[in-house]
Amino acid sequence: MRALVYQGPNSIVWQEVPDPRILKPTDAIVKIATTTICGTDLHILKGDVPAVQPGRILGHEGVGVVTEVGEAVTEIAVGDRVIVSCISACGKCSYCLEGMYSHCLADEGASGIGWILGHLIDGTQAEYVRVPFAETSLHKLPEGVVPEEAAMISDILPTGHEIGIRYGAVKPGDVVAVIGAGPVGLAAMTTAALYGPSRVIAIDLDANRVEQAKRFGASDGIVSSDADWKEQVIALTDGLGVDVAIEAVGVPATWDMTLAIVRPGGHVANVGVHGKPVTFPLEKAWIQNLTITTGLVNTDTSRMLIKLLAQGKIDVAGFISHRFALDDILSAYDTFGRAAETKALKVILTA
Amino acid sequence: MRALVYQGPNSIVWQEVPDPRILKPTDAIVKIATTTICGTDLHILKGDVPAVQPGRILGHEGVGVVTEVGEAVTEIAVGDRVIVSCISACGKCSYCLEGMYSHCLADEGASGIGWILGHLIDGTQAEYVRVPFAETSLHKLPEGVVPEEAAMISDILPTGHEIGIRYGAVKPGDVVAVIGAGPVGLAAMTTAALYGPSRVIAIDLDANRVEQAKRFGASDGIVSSDADWKEQVIALTDGLGVDVAIEAVGVPATWDMTLAIVRPGGHVANVGVHGKPVTFPLEKAWIQNLTITTGLVNTDTSRMLIKLLAQGKIDVAGFISHRFALDDILSAYDTFGRAAETKALKVILTA
Amino acid sequence: MRALVYQGPNSIVWQEVPDPRILKPTDAIVKIATTTICGTDLHILKGDVPAVQPGRILGHEGVGVVTEVGEAVTEIAVGDRVIVSCISACGKCSYCLEGMYSHCLADEGASGIGWILGHLIDGTQAEYVRVPFAETSLHKLPEGVVPEEAAMISDILPTGHEIGIRYGAVKPGDVVAVIGAGPVGLAAMTTAALYGPSRVIAIDLDANRVEQAKRFGASDGIVSSDADWKEQVIALTDGLGVDVAIEAVGVPATWDMTLAIVRPGGHVANVGVHGKPVTFPLEKAWIQNLTITTGLVNTDTSRMLIKLLAQGKIDVAGFISHRFALDDILSAYDTFGRAAETKALKVILTA
Amino acid sequence: MRALVYQGPNSIVWQEVPDPRILKPTDAIVKIATTTICGTDLHILKGDVPAVQPGRILGHEGVGVVTEVGEAVTEIAVGDRVIVSCISACGKCSYCLEGMYSHCLADEGASGIGWILGHLIDGTQAEYVRVPFAETSLHKLPEGVVPEEAAMISDILPTGHEIGIRYGAVKPGDVVAVIGAGPVGLAAMTTAALYGPSRVIAIDLDANRVEQAKRFGASDGIVSSDADWKEQVIALTDGLGVDVAIEAVGVPATWDMTLAIVRPGGHVANVGVHGKPVTFPLEKAWIQNLTITTGLVNTDTSRMLIKLLAQGKIDVAGFISHRFALDDILSAYDTFGRAAETKALKVILTA
Repeated sequence: MRALVYQGPNSIVWQEVPDPRILKPTDAIVKIATTTICGTDLHILKGDVPAVQPGRILGHEGVGVVTEVGEAVTEIAVGDRVIVSCISACGKCSYCLEGMYSHCLADEGASGIGWILGHLIDGTQAEYVRVPFAETSLHKLPEGVVPEEAAMISDILPTGHEIGIRYGAVKPGDVVAVIGAGPVGLAAMTTAALYGPSRVIAIDLDANRVEQAKRFGASDGIVSSDADWKEQVIALTDGLGVDVAIEAVGVPATWDMTLAIVRPGGHVANVGVHGKPVTFPLEKAWIQNLTITTGLVNTDTSRMLIKLLAQGKIDVAGFISHRFALDDILSAYDTFGRAAETKALKVILTA
Repeated sequence: MRALVYQGPNSIVWQEVPDPRILKPTDAIVKIATTTICGTDLHILKGDVPAVQPGRILGHEGVGVVTEVGEAVTEIAVGDRVIVSCISACGKCSYCLEGMYSHCLADEGASGIGWILGHLIDGTQAEYVRVPFAETSLHKLPEGVVPEEAAMISDILPTGHEIGIRYGAVKPGDVVAVIGAGPVGLAAMTTAALYGPSRVIAIDLDANRVEQAKRFGASDGIVSSDADWKEQVIALTDGLGVDVAIEAVGVPATWDMTLAIVRPGGHVANVGVHGKPVTFPLEKAWIQNLTITTGLVNTDTSRMLIKLLAQGKIDVAGFISHRFALDDILSAYDTFGRAAETKALKVILTA
Repeated sequence: MRALVYQGPNSIVWQEVPDPRILKPTDAIVKIATTTICGTDLHILKGDVPAVQPGRILGHEGVGVVTEVGEAVTEIAVGDRVIVSCISACGKCSYCLEGMYSHCLADEGASGIGWILGHLIDGTQAEYVRVPFAETSLHKLPEGVVPEEAAMISDILPTGHEIGIRYGAVKPGDVVAVIGAGPVGLAAMTTAALYGPSRVIAIDLDANRVEQAKRFGASDGIVSSDADWKEQVIALTDGLGVDVAIEAVGVPATWDMTLAIVRPGGHVANVGVHGKPVTFPLEKAWIQNLTITTGLVNTDTSRMLIKLLAQGKIDVAGFISHRFALDDILSAYDTFGRAAETKALKVILTA
Repeated sequence: MRALVYQGPNSIVWQEVPDPRILKPTDAIVKIATTTICGTDLHILKGDVPAVQPGRILGHEGVGVVTEVGEAVTEIAVGDRVIVSCISACGKCSYCLEGMYSHCLADEGASGIGWILGHLIDGTQAEYVRVPFAETSLHKLPEGVVPEEAAMISDILPTGHEIGIRYGAVKPGDVVAVIGAGPVGLAAMTTAALYGPSRVIAIDLDANRVEQAKRFGASDGIVSSDADWKEQVIALTDGLGVDVAIEAVGVPATWDMTLAIVRPGGHVANVGVHGKPVTFPLEKAWIQNLTITTGLVNTDTSRMLIKLLAQGKIDVAGFISHRFALDDILSAYDTFGRAAETKALKVILTA
């Protein structure tokens, strides 16, 4: 088959590789119909994720058809149309039993991390992929859900929902600020509506993205290059600050912004992938009754999100900005890598 | 009356001052029978809390008898024996209505902070004290509760319970580590038992305090000057780290310790009063699904703790290390200020 | 002033009565601008609520302007436009401190019940009303909220929300059935949207009301006189039954219906006012892991609902079916009393 | 092997039967070391559980050693000492994924019920048992836990804990009443301590059992044949009733008792297995803000309880009243069946 292989920093090749095969009785092989590229893939490409070794097939998102299953697999059958979860979960370890699939302890190329596809084992940017723990790592695609939209369930939608909105404990009436209007920030805004906030404020350096966010559920938008951005945010609250501040960028400056706008008793939910430590002003924060959360997606809400997608209660069509043939994946990386310029959100690759 | 008056850094005087009087219809006057000294009082004495102005009577803990009430006070009557809460709560602002009394918005010498006694208005280290919002800031002392033990309800017990154990979300089976075996850390250990932990690990630099902690509910103790203190902690868990790490000291080194021992998916509850920013290694923590909390006590669990005290379900006698006459409060400050040497926990002052 | 006075079963008179006056320092007098009639008022009129004695002014809903306040009232001022809560809450008893205002223990004509207006003391169907515990029983009307819509906050909207949706523990993805498409059932459907259900099924005997329910947030409607109504409901689920069944009628037959459609592990939230015992088939239900709730509204979410109303996040205009002058209240009772025929939902009375 | 076979109402035989064998890749065979008898087994013996067909081996509790595993089983190995859960859970269906193993949908002799051992498939009162879904239905026995005590984890301890205490939402300070001081009621009392109640009141018709309950965590005891039993209960509360009433008998009279003593806003947790419908006085209860729960045990807390048992935080030695050889199981049934007379709690059978 053909697959996108990481060759080392700044080098990926779309090339012929051996087909994957069943290695364990709980595996399945999925023929990829639709896949996409994640911001994390760009980090890998830059060489920022040393655990990814040259020779690795990238990608942890996608939708396809099951072509083979291990002998212990009974819930998933050949021919099933499925969504591949970015998290591979054994379903039996202590973390999986509490629904924290993000830290699955199974020894499948890793121990203590559920994100292994396109990271520690070969991924979905290929014609076929082996999926370990298939029954707990694949979700059947219901009738009436468009595959390219279903691909948003692999990672982006549960990430925004679980790590942004649920960890942020958004509740009816809350004023929620989302810092960073990229795909994951927009996923947080989209799923915030499931919790009845009174306002969802999109904050970004780019005025276009702020404006665009209003199509994803933001009620208000603020351009953070404005000198008085903070005052603008506070003016949208009762004067005390936002109830929930979600960081969806991953740099110290945006972390600092969350603490600047959250009210005493509020929540800060970090979704961004950070590369550096930050300063936490505990000399002020100790008395502020804050709750701060971090996290890798668990995908424990993926089935619920699929249900809402099937019922038309969540609209994700807007996330798809570009479409390419799977064979043209290098062009897709180029477009996605220049998102500021191309205004790319999610680029869809179709086999 | 006589009262302990702050005169500026390093200067307190036990002196004659005018008696307090009712200023608002929701006030009460309490004749102090028992009071005590908090670590925060020592901070004030050093000049670390600039909001405390010279002339202020210190103290935010105590038990006494009501001698006068404002005309709107109906729930509390003259003659009632009461515990003074360290938090004065109006009961009507948006924070009070959600039980977050710590950030009461009432304009009683402050706005946005419920700790005003001995801070922004005169406090309890005196023969009499005016208590604002008496109905929501005093608790009746039930029969059978010893007053000096009831004084532990003013601040220390709810602080350890609410900001350590409840914010830390301790649940049955958890392994809990408490860093710092001073009075508040011990209060966290004592109240941890209400949530069914499998282990409570006391961690302190002082081997004597670690040993003493076992009388306050610690199942295990670790001396943090040991080079392998961290390995000792991890060995008491399933190898992944503690479920809940409680910081009860207030310096960067102990903050760092919490992150070193907490498991992915675990909780860090900061109880310590910090004077400096800390470093938060978000480049590692972003993927660890942590929950970090901070906070000033709400005292919303004080009534419940009083009930447990009255039923003999919590034992606080051990917190009292020294006793003085109220007139001898300067000696009490001296003893409490040299706690490492005197092994003082709570020093009780009796009128 | 003029007021609607209950004279005994089936007899109400709009007549001249003495103006109310401040009796306690925590009271306020409100000049009614808008009021409405509740199904409970019809029960009283029939003589079904013996606690209501002849001579009582009816009504527990309304919006008006404060004309006088007791000396302990500082949060509410003369001239404030306010919504009167159907629950009068002292804010200081053990129930109020936990937010369960429905069972306020204050001795204000009652003990242990927060609904006293138009029940145990004179109510809002009058030109003026005395409101006890004004600061915790009145809510300021924000700019931009239409008074007649704000009157939906007095009772109906928090009742559907708190006792139906919140007690029913509706969560994202749930299939929710509401049995009874009268005003309170519709209020449950309207507020269900704050919790992200995948379906809201309106069930009623009247096909018109079922159809109408779709304007209040129902995604599906089922006429319960259909022989296969139950099969129709189950067909809208995964085959196991609904996640949450809300009873908003108050008769044994509709109670039975909830148990017929709820899935194992599901919730039954009773909102209806019942006059008879029901049969609970515990020989089947013991193994079904059900949660069943009942309740009088607490109005602890009224402030939050007002915020959402002010932000345009909840639309309640559709609840208002008829409008009358306050002087014409007897006509309004007649119209509301014949709701099946007049299709009345909420009738608005304007002073 | 030899096993206890149900032959029809009132007829059980200890006889030679074929050894069980692996039927599916997820099965394990366990050699029973210790088993016990449940009240449910007595119901079966009387013919009250028609789903149990003649020829069925009874028993759903026990501890043993794994002698064989299916090819998909990797978490459990031959030689492991294990506790058999009374619930067999596939770990993959929609109920299992939310931890509600009680209603596992797997088609293993049943659909929609997790209790199948000794019910719909052969059980543990035998020398060997086949355990389906071994990885999610067996728990490893940690060092230091006595096998006969570990057998309390199969059913009784999680049932009292999950369906009594957790469904009852017991929280610190609560007054909890447990009606019925048999094994499951005592298990509820024992595990109540994990949640910090201020009182645990044991209520039973038998004064000896009431007295005995104090060794299982009851702080107070009331004999329900006393004419004023209800007044005695209320006197142990603040006058409003208990916070949580747990029914652990299973007859209409004890159901009625829960409603007689629970306070407005309180919880009723039904643990008893009922054979008849009960009357629910909804004409009174609609306004009482009650939460009523029912349920079959999920065993989702078994691992946590094992941890507490291993740490010595729960003491279950007292549950064991009699011991027999496995071959003498008919004597054990006789003793257990005459519990009122023999004072049997749990009878232990050792192979």
